[in-house]
Amino acid sequence: MSDYDLIVRGGTLVTASESFAADIAVKDGRIAALGKELGSAGRIIDAGGLLVLPGGVDAHCHVEQESSTRIWTADDFYSGSVSAAFGGTTTFLPFAAQHRGQSLRDVVKDAQERCAPKAVIDYAFHLIISDPTAQVLGQELPALIQDGYTSFKVYMTYDQLKIDDRQILDVLCVARDHGAVTMIHAENNDVISWISERLLERGHGAPKYHAVSHPRIAESEATSRAIQLARLVDTKLLIVHVSAPEAADAILAARNAGLKIYGETCPQYLFLTAEDLDRQGMEGAKFCCSPPPRDEAGQAAIWRGLKNGTFQVFSSDHAPYRMDESGKLKHGPKANFKQIANGVPGLELRLPLLFSEGVGKGRLTVNEFVALTSANPARIYGLHPRKGSLAVGADADLALWDPAWQRRVTYDLLHDNAGYTPYEGMTLTGWPRFVISRGRVIVEEEALQAERGSGLFLDRTPEIEAAGHREPELDPARNFGAELL
Amino acid sequence: MSDYDLIVRGGTLVTASESFAADIAVKDGRIAALGKELGSAGRIIDAGGLLVLPGGVDAHCHVEQESSTRIWTADDFYSGSVSAAFGGTTTFLPFAAQHRGQSLRDVVKDAQERCAPKAVIDYAFHLIISDPTAQVLGQELPALIQDGYTSFKVYMTYDQLKIDDRQILDVLCVARDHGAVTMIHAENNDVISWISERLLERGHGAPKYHAVSHPRIAESEATSRAIQLARLVDTKLLIVHVSAPEAADAILAARNAGLKIYGETCPQYLFLTAEDLDRQGMEGAKFCCSPPPRDEAGQAAIWRGLKNGTFQVFSSDHAPYRMDESGKLKHGPKANFKQIANGVPGLELRLPLLFSEGVGKGRLTVNEFVALTSANPARIYGLHPRKGSLAVGADADLALWDPAWQRRVTYDLLHDNAGYTPYEGMTLTGWPRFVISRGRVIVEEEALQAERGSGLFLDRTPEIEAAGHREPELDPARNFGAELL
Amino acid sequence: MSDYDLIVRGGTLVTASESFAADIAVKDGRIAALGKELGSAGRIIDAGGLLVLPGGVDAHCHVEQESSTRIWTADDFYSGSVSAAFGGTTTFLPFAAQHRGQSLRDVVKDAQERCAPKAVIDYAFHLIISDPTAQVLGQELPALIQDGYTSFKVYMTYDQLKIDDRQILDVLCVARDHGAVTMIHAENNDVISWISERLLERGHGAPKYHAVSHPRIAESEATSRAIQLARLVDTKLLIVHVSAPEAADAILAARNAGLKIYGETCPQYLFLTAEDLDRQGMEGAKFCCSPPPRDEAGQAAIWRGLKNGTFQVFSSDHAPYRMDESGKLKHGPKANFKQIANGVPGLELRLPLLFSEGVGKGRLTVNEFVALTSANPARIYGLHPRKGSLAVGADADLALWDPAWQRRVTYDLLHDNAGYTPYEGMTLTGWPRFVISRGRVIVEEEALQAERGSGLFLDRTPEIEAAGHREPELDPARNFGAELL
Amino acid sequence: MSDYDLIVRGGTLVTASESFAADIAVKDGRIAALGKELGSAGRIIDAGGLLVLPGGVDAHCHVEQESSTRIWTADDFYSGSVSAAFGGTTTFLPFAAQHRGQSLRDVVKDAQERCAPKAVIDYAFHLIISDPTAQVLGQELPALIQDGYTSFKVYMTYDQLKIDDRQILDVLCVARDHGAVTMIHAENNDVISWISERLLERGHGAPKYHAVSHPRIAESEATSRAIQLARLVDTKLLIVHVSAPEAADAILAARNAGLKIYGETCPQYLFLTAEDLDRQGMEGAKFCCSPPPRDEAGQAAIWRGLKNGTFQVFSSDHAPYRMDESGKLKHGPKANFKQIANGVPGLELRLPLLFSEGVGKGRLTVNEFVALTSANPARIYGLHPRKGSLAVGADADLALWDPAWQRRVTYDLLHDNAGYTPYEGMTLTGWPRFVISRGRVIVEEEALQAERGSGLFLDRTPEIEAAGHREPELDPARNFGAELL
Repeated sequence: MSDYDLIVRGGTLVTASESFAADIAVKDGRIAALGKELGSAGRIIDAGGLLVLPGGVDAHCHVEQESSTRIWTADDFYSGSVSAAFGGTTTFLPFAAQHRGQSLRDVVKDAQERCAPKAVIDYAFHLIISDPTAQVLGQELPALIQDGYTSFKVYMTYDQLKIDDRQILDVLCVARDHGAVTMIHAENNDVISWISERLLERGHGAPKYHAVSHPRIAESEATSRAIQLARLVDTKLLIVHVSAPEAADAILAARNAGLKIYGETCPQYLFLTAEDLDRQGMEGAKFCCSPPPRDEAGQAAIWRGLKNGTFQVFSSDHAPYRMDESGKLKHGPKANFKQIANGVPGLELRLPLLFSEGVGKGRLTVNEFVALTSANPARIYGLHPRKGSLAVGADADLALWDPAWQRRVTYDLLHDNAGYTPYEGMTLTGWPRFVISRGRVIVEEEALQAERGSGLFLDRTPEIEAAGHREPELDPARNFGAELL
Repeated sequence: MSDYDLIVRGGTLVTASESFAADIAVKDGRIAALGKELGSAGRIIDAGGLLVLPGGVDAHCHVEQESSTRIWTADDFYSGSVSAAFGGTTTFLPFAAQHRGQSLRDVVKDAQERCAPKAVIDYAFHLIISDPTAQVLGQELPALIQDGYTSFKVYMTYDQLKIDDRQILDVLCVARDHGAVTMIHAENNDVISWISERLLERGHGAPKYHAVSHPRIAESEATSRAIQLARLVDTKLLIVHVSAPEAADAILAARNAGLKIYGETCPQYLFLTAEDLDRQGMEGAKFCCSPPPRDEAGQAAIWRGLKNGTFQVFSSDHAPYRMDESGKLKHGPKANFKQIANGVPGLELRLPLLFSEGVGKGRLTVNEFVALTSANPARIYGLHPRKGSLAVGADADLALWDPAWQRRVTYDLLHDNAGYTPYEGMTLTGWPRFVISRGRVIVEEEALQAERGSGLFLDRTPEIEAAGHREPELDPARNFGAELL
Repeated sequence: MSDYDLIVRGGTLVTASESFAADIAVKDGRIAALGKELGSAGRIIDAGGLLVLPGGVDAHCHVEQESSTRIWTADDFYSGSVSAAFGGTTTFLPFAAQHRGQSLRDVVKDAQERCAPKAVIDYAFHLIISDPTAQVLGQELPALIQDGYTSFKVYMTYDQLKIDDRQILDVLCVARDHGAVTMIHAENNDVISWISERLLERGHGAPKYHAVSHPRIAESEATSRAIQLARLVDTKLLIVHVSAPEAADAILAARNAGLKIYGETCPQYLFLTAEDLDRQGMEGAKFCCSPPPRDEAGQAAIWRGLKNGTFQVFSSDHAPYRMDESGKLKHGPKANFKQIANGVPGLELRLPLLFSEGVGKGRLTVNEFVALTSANPARIYGLHPRKGSLAVGADADLALWDPAWQRRVTYDLLHDNAGYTPYEGMTLTGWPRFVISRGRVIVEEEALQAERGSGLFLDRTPEIEAAGHREPELDPARNFGAELL
Repeated sequence: MSDYDLIVRGGTLVTASESFAADIAVKDGRIAALGKELGSAGRIIDAGGLLVLPGGVDAHCHVEQESSTRIWTADDFYSGSVSAAFGGTTTFLPFAAQHRGQSLRDVVKDAQERCAPKAVIDYAFHLIISDPTAQVLGQELPALIQDGYTSFKVYMTYDQLKIDDRQILDVLCVARDHGAVTMIHAENNDVISWISERLLERGHGAPKYHAVSHPRIAESEATSRAIQLARLVDTKLLIVHVSAPEAADAILAARNAGLKIYGETCPQYLFLTAEDLDRQGMEGAKFCCSPPPRDEAGQAAIWRGLKNGTFQVFSSDHAPYRMDESGKLKHGPKANFKQIANGVPGLELRLPLLFSEGVGKGRLTVNEFVALTSANPARIYGLHPRKGSLAVGADADLALWDPAWQRRVTYDLLHDNAGYTPYEGMTLTGWPRFVISRGRVIVEEEALQAERGSGLFLDRTPEIEAAGHREPELDPARNFGAELL
């Protein structure tokens, strides 16, 4: 009998802090040893010339989700997870989204029932909380956190989703007190709706006006406000999909000051600009997402933020809508920008894009790449040490990456169901040759090997954080404790 | 016949930029000449040893106003204007406050009818807009601006007054397009109400918790947000009664960047602290105002802001409520902090406090004192060159100031109707010997000389400002003009 | 007999804080009265349509001065003061420059002897201290300050002039202790000489390389350093001729923090760029000055600094060298950039340039113009209230300014002796019709009326400033007073 | 025959990014495998309950070095390395210090000859360059870099060591062009000597005045200046032993902007204050080091900098001088602060101090501890992947750390030759049980196992960095490349 189930031999192992040549041995789905001449194995994969990366963790994707305007994403949990796998991602965290009036329990149950029979990679769910009733805050949410749903997202914009500052404070306190992490979509809803209305009144409905209606100020204002709210109650907050330089600055300043603020950005803010929304006819609709892509100076600022510690997480914010009546064009080919579903696909290209343009062009080290795409999201969202790691004992989730493989992106290459890619025509260098999930090879040389439903749900453990610096003003008379908040 | 009606002889004239020895001659209520040996006059006042200041302009005071919780201020336009006059203030700008559902026209008419027969000093009104309906924004407000009501205040807090960010943008655009200036009370209402509720749930209702419920974060967050909204639509905005150092920082940064942002502060943020709210029994209620006094470090920051250009205006925010059932204690001696009327009196001591502790202690020059208390508010609110000036042609509004006159503050010394002063017991050096309004001596050696209703309403002229820097993001596709905003 | 010697009638008086219509009456060289119908006068000038400004005070100009490389400026005190007068400047402060080894007393005596018989406007001298020996620091300088020489300049660059940080501290302490103000040329000499040497080694000697050899970093580094030195010993310091945005930022930050730091800038940083140094042949030499003009973004930053309080003083830094062997081309037509005398002329155009492009284009108010060009330098350098003012009792130094007079700049129009103007060809709107010094009309409709030597030396009074915030680190053991510094 | 030479079994492995339970197998001095049940070994150490850390790398220590004032450190390479080993440090980088006039080659040869027979741990040398002659810059230094001496330190202070800004630029260019890293002692020498002289003139010579003579401004000014110089020539620079919050701020701002600036701090800035220099008699001399310890607010700022990315390296700056005529008291018991040798010992307590007060008190994660004390210095100074790592293939340098071992610090516990410890009396929790160098157990349960001279010299490889952002001003005329710098 073999010592191990699988040995990946001859590759260069890459972690968030190191790169070194070693073999990696897998047993019972976990990493059993790192070394040379480790023994025998049921299968040996030759990784000569390849980088052995922890499989990607995509911490922000919308899959088999119905939007607040009742449009379903083009991907279900099967096509979404397959697409992720082909891109080197072995764990994803789609959303279990509450519509107003719904019980969170029902929301979670529905997501579980949909995902379990389809996913080919492991998964956990972020909750979306759009209706933080007393029942939700006092009972459902604490119970779900205990059950392992330790992250949730709230919105400051979208009429059907947004919660107000008071509700944000309530949610943050539940997260803090029960050991969860809050994510926030930070844009000022009033600014957006005020501009939108003025634009539409004047007949400016073309896709490009979507970008006009979401100015950088709307994002940076809301980001700063959200940071202050988290600071007030002394808890963690992650700002998702940051696109505006001023918002990035606010996050970095908060982190420099020692606040527990995290930042996330996405491919669309590195590789697209608002000019893309001005393409011919409805073509611009393909690039409508919120916040919108900015300009080249903004791209440079976001790259800098990936390097200087502003951002810990690089996600796809995959939100696939087809360019037909099922998706972007639900309201027809003359729809105005407010009627176009927001979102771009990106689950499969997230790693190749960042590797090629980040590592390949010298903007990031390969270790920073692993940290941003895998190790950090695993740690922040409670999946560490099981995911995002090459440590002994971790799940054997690996992407065997060929740093020299050059391919031109076309939609045909991809496996999602969006019907287009915003990155059509780019040539990227660096793609996965093998993708391994808990020791199972799920993608091998462009072919899927995994079965529907072979992904597992990942239970997580609440983590109560230590108290930090609290707003001193809260104790003006010196006999009043911050514990009241 | 005399050359002039009045000559003030032998004093030191002080303007916002200079101090020099000269006589000042008045004719027909206006300054006719500055010089030496100017000729004969109906009356000659010897100002030897005195400073001749432009009379104070108090740009923020609540007089004969019914609060949103239906409590009337303790002062009517007579007692309020008399108190102002004794303190060296010759112009004030109380509010004509809209309650929701009211027509602005009615509000203005009511204020005029109340004030005209009582005021002993000249006056103009700021409007308070709590209900910016289409009718108000589209018709009433533009018409009132044309009629000379060129300033208005909006609130980001107080349930009965606050307007949301969209409404703020609407109001700012009307101000910009029709030539008015907007003032804003910047505190985050959600933060305040969220904390307040938690405090009261836990039985913390004493006055000192008022300060706890208004943390610095609530003020600085709202200040930053308001600045961003004004920046978006490229118009003037004045942040009233700033108390938090972080809010002052935000204003200064905006001004350094060239935005049209102004700042105001008040005596309570220089001379009181949150500790005052923790005095015995309901005594703390005397000091409840919003935002609340902070701490000593905060006082130092506000002093620095008076020196470094953060603040252009020093007002009283006079809001007098008696310590009985007519005012602070409407809800009885066991009222909780949410039931205590907000506000402190200060109309009469505004100038003596800042002169004594600012000029007298070397923190400000006497010219800076004149700028902050008289020249700047006159200019910002459209009263220049008639008020706030010693220029030839200006109204002869003068405070003949004895810089060496030392008095201990007691409420008995004062002429308002609040029943107490928060500054009881302070010894101040520097008080007015004579106060002159349009050439009429209205206060002379501690005695009132003016008749009820002798003050005049001051009509103002709209001023359309030049366009400045507009958010560049607003033109992402290069064919969309900022004019749409 | 007339009441007054002169009345300027019907103009609009402009001070640093106000503009108003009034006549101005002069007696015995001083302003005697402001008003209407003031009486009779020996002469009456009709100023209808004109602005009546305090005459300009040029606080930075090199006139009849021998540079450290032994080149004399093209202007002597006659041509320099005549040129100033034609431009509306009625007071100037050239330098009495110490070369190493010289006694300051001798330097001052020489300057006085040269200037007295020639100047047509009033004057004071800044000392230049290049050799702060114990004798200079301990005896000559304190005595000269007592004698009214209350300002001096030091250099951080130029091999023959620069003093080191220790010497700067010594000079600052003398200024502080005896009541003078220190000016500093802030550029890092090592950086400049290091780059220069590398450039010349590679054969890059053309004038444009002068700009390369003086990078913004050299200026901003030295500016920050100088500010820290002044902060250490808690005294006033004025940074002259600021061109780099980063240096302006450092000054503004210091001022915001309450430090006694002042900033000056000059026309060359608003109207020229480094591109001008790249003109054909030696033409670029005309624009060589230190620090050099920067780029358009830099110009915008300097304009912003004039508006937001970074700069208090707008001077010419007039340093006229002819484009021949007497000046710029001393080392011949093939000279490298290190051999070209540094400096541009600007004494006459300082006011017209700033008025036309600042006031005329809406960047500055006319009051800010007066503050920057006249009132502030008078105050900072101890000439207030005699100069820079329209106050009763001030010297009757006036520029009667025609804001509508449009002229195209050519060197022929000017009265200096530089032989060229860097602003050739610009069309400027706003020029003085009459220039009056102590009541004497010295320029009237393009003709000089003043006699050689009619200018007066201005004695000044030392001003010991109050102690401010001192570096707290200096008292680590709590028993050591800052007085040791 | 055993599979491995050594297996460390049952511990928790800790790297800069992860912690996980695994055994670690060593062969031929290198880490051969990580895993469970790895096979047989010549020796098995039970690490149950212990943390298995990469051995510490102390990147800043003065050992067997003669100071510029001709005092030898109390430790030679034997006692120094033994002391390091007992503290869990397995690699150190002492200095090979050039005195002016010396050839660098001779300096290196001397250091090598002294160290080789004595060191018990591995070592490399930083050069100190005090005399950057053309010979040194043009020949010796490039050759030594090629030979593996890829780091050097320069001083901005100390009369016998300091080089000026020009020389710093020269050294930085050599480092950049040949692939080395520059370290800098950043204090403004003029400020220090100016204050010192004034102090001594007034008779203030006690040790506490050492802190007074090195104000925070001297450090922050020089730090900012050094950063600007490195920015000008676009190269790496590491600021050593940072103590002033303002200096830390400057480093963080530079890093945020993407500059290649690194920061180091040391135990003395976390655990001592300037008050310590005020102890009885000459006791304060024990704590004299440069820069000096600051105050408690400063300590908090330095802790924050360890967390927020300001500092990458935590070193000892071990500089041991005995409290007798061989060291601190060379000039006798009445010596003034300028005569007291600067420096404190810390090689042995560096890790226990930071572990106990950082990790143990929740300020740092254990992974951050490893990064700061081992992984980062190894990487920055070119020792990675051989040192600072638990990667397969790395040298088996391990500290088996008992996180629960509590000991009270007394000098008797230590193994250096300084004769005292500044941390006497502190109780620290967390000490090494075993220390292993290249697989050899060198310390085991408080006993030394290593032989004199068993440490190895570590050759390093030059690393030419990619060009980054260069000062744009350097190309004003658009035809001049930054390559000239």
